[in-house]
Amino acid sequence: MNTTVIGLGKMGRALAAALVARGHDTTVWNRTPGRAGDLAVTNAQTAADAVAANELVILCLLDFESVVDVLDGVELTGRTIVNLTTGTPAEAAKLSALVTGRGAAFLDGGIMAIPSMIGSPAAVVLYSGDEQAFRRAQDVLSAFGDRRYLGAEPGLAALNDIAMLTGMYGMLGGFVHAAAMVRTEGVPVVEFTETLLIPWLRAMFPALVDMAGQIDSGDYTAEESDLAMQVANDGIGEVSRAQGVSTELSDPLFALMRRRVEQGHGGDDFPSVIELLS
Amino acid sequence: MNTTVIGLGKMGRALAAALVARGHDTTVWNRTPGRAGDLAVTNAQTAADAVAANELVILCLLDFESVVDVLDGVELTGRTIVNLTTGTPAEAAKLSALVTGRGAAFLDGGIMAIPSMIGSPAAVVLYSGDEQAFRRAQDVLSAFGDRRYLGAEPGLAALNDIAMLTGMYGMLGGFVHAAAMVRTEGVPVVEFTETLLIPWLRAMFPALVDMAGQIDSGDYTAEESDLAMQVANDGIGEVSRAQGVSTELSDPLFALMRRRVEQGHGGDDFPSVIELLS
Repeated sequence: MNTTVIGLGKMGRALAAALVARGHDTTVWNRTPGRAGDLAVTNAQTAADAVAANELVILCLLDFESVVDVLDGVELTGRTIVNLTTGTPAEAAKLSALVTGRGAAFLDGGIMAIPSMIGSPAAVVLYSGDEQAFRRAQDVLSAFGDRRYLGAEPGLAALNDIAMLTGMYGMLGGFVHAAAMVRTEGVPVVEFTETLLIPWLRAMFPALVDMAGQIDSGDYTAEESDLAMQVANDGIGEVSRAQGVSTELSDPLFALMRRRVEQGHGGDDFPSVIELLS
Repeated sequence: MNTTVIGLGKMGRALAAALVARGHDTTVWNRTPGRAGDLAVTNAQTAADAVAANELVILCLLDFESVVDVLDGVELTGRTIVNLTTGTPAEAAKLSALVTGRGAAFLDGGIMAIPSMIGSPAAVVLYSGDEQAFRRAQDVLSAFGDRRYLGAEPGLAALNDIAMLTGMYGMLGGFVHAAAMVRTEGVPVVEFTETLLIPWLRAMFPALVDMAGQIDSGDYTAEESDLAMQVANDGIGEVSRAQGVSTELSDPLFALMRRRVEQGHGGDDFPSVIELLS
């Protein structure tokens, strides 16, 4: 299936390269020309030409405004527009209305990978929007990596994408705080991370699924260590201060847990704190 | 090897039960009597009797003060004292001085498990202190789960224990924030956690080891996405606000990243922020 890629930043170029590697005839366009380098692609003269060249059109631009700008005045009837530009659920919804209103099918996507991962099974791309369009395009889209269709609501891919990033930054924040603690005593951070922290976080994954079940059900009955017990022992704060490590990354979570205890939920399991977040 | 366990809270009882299950003759003592229940152990009348009964003495009490209190005036010469009471590195150092000053060998431990996990390989116990004592005791200690000796400095087990907890709470904070986002659109949190978040966090582990290497070397040269790029796109804040989810858990990390960029380190990789923590 011939494909068009609009936007040749690092990520757009990686997408085009993955399509070429799979043998797809690929047409590209970028506002600044010459970005295709030695990729075996067809360079379109204008965005309109690039869209006209193929039914399947993939957009990977700087932001939402760039997408709206590039599509301005371009004939979209009968096209399938796949937007892989990083954005918000609200932007995906606006883009869906704009694109479908002009006679095209719309898919929004969230790329859970860095450019160098594109084309490997480790790269996951989330999609939401027109399900028929996803079914038609999925063989082509498999060139980028693992693909997941999340539902017809156009914003779902962006929402899950941002939520996964949020989870990642939480883990990264915990990691740098932990690393700051152990290095105060000269412990090599690589050794701590490989032999202790990662196995421990991995061992915690089944508990994460249990906590997710508590959130879905709203039943936070504690089995072993309730919020009041967790809050009573502030070893993280005490040891951080004793070692001269800032507690700015852990303070807000413990403050949230304390607020939940003060509300009378000290007997709940940890995930009960979600009720204070939204 | 006959063993004494002092302190029969939930965790102490689990430790005694694991020793009995391995066929070790076990003597126990608890301030409030009757806590051994139907465990096949010998109940000592006093803490001094319990310590006198066996060379290897395991303590699992409420806190540091309870340990000092229980050992007050007890003959310790020739004993090996293994303290599995939750505490700080400073408390471990004080206890080591106290115990070795009275003619006993000292090991401090950090239990990375809940009581129900004790006796399974999933339970990890960290040890630090007297290496000879660890070698003599390790067959007995293997009854509790996987055991790791971290070094002669008595506080190392407590330090690594607290650092692992810090890493875990970071991941948990990211998880509840992410869960709060997806459930605003009716996404089942279990499905999100199992099929998207956990595979994504697991895929991030090798990057965590790379970041640890950057921290050990102090070379934060960015390869793909530097701090300035990460800070420029505040999708987490924007989408959280749009979905009515509090950003109190993610704000401090992004504030830290922005401070590092303002210091002229925008071209660094993420772990460079550690230099602002300690």
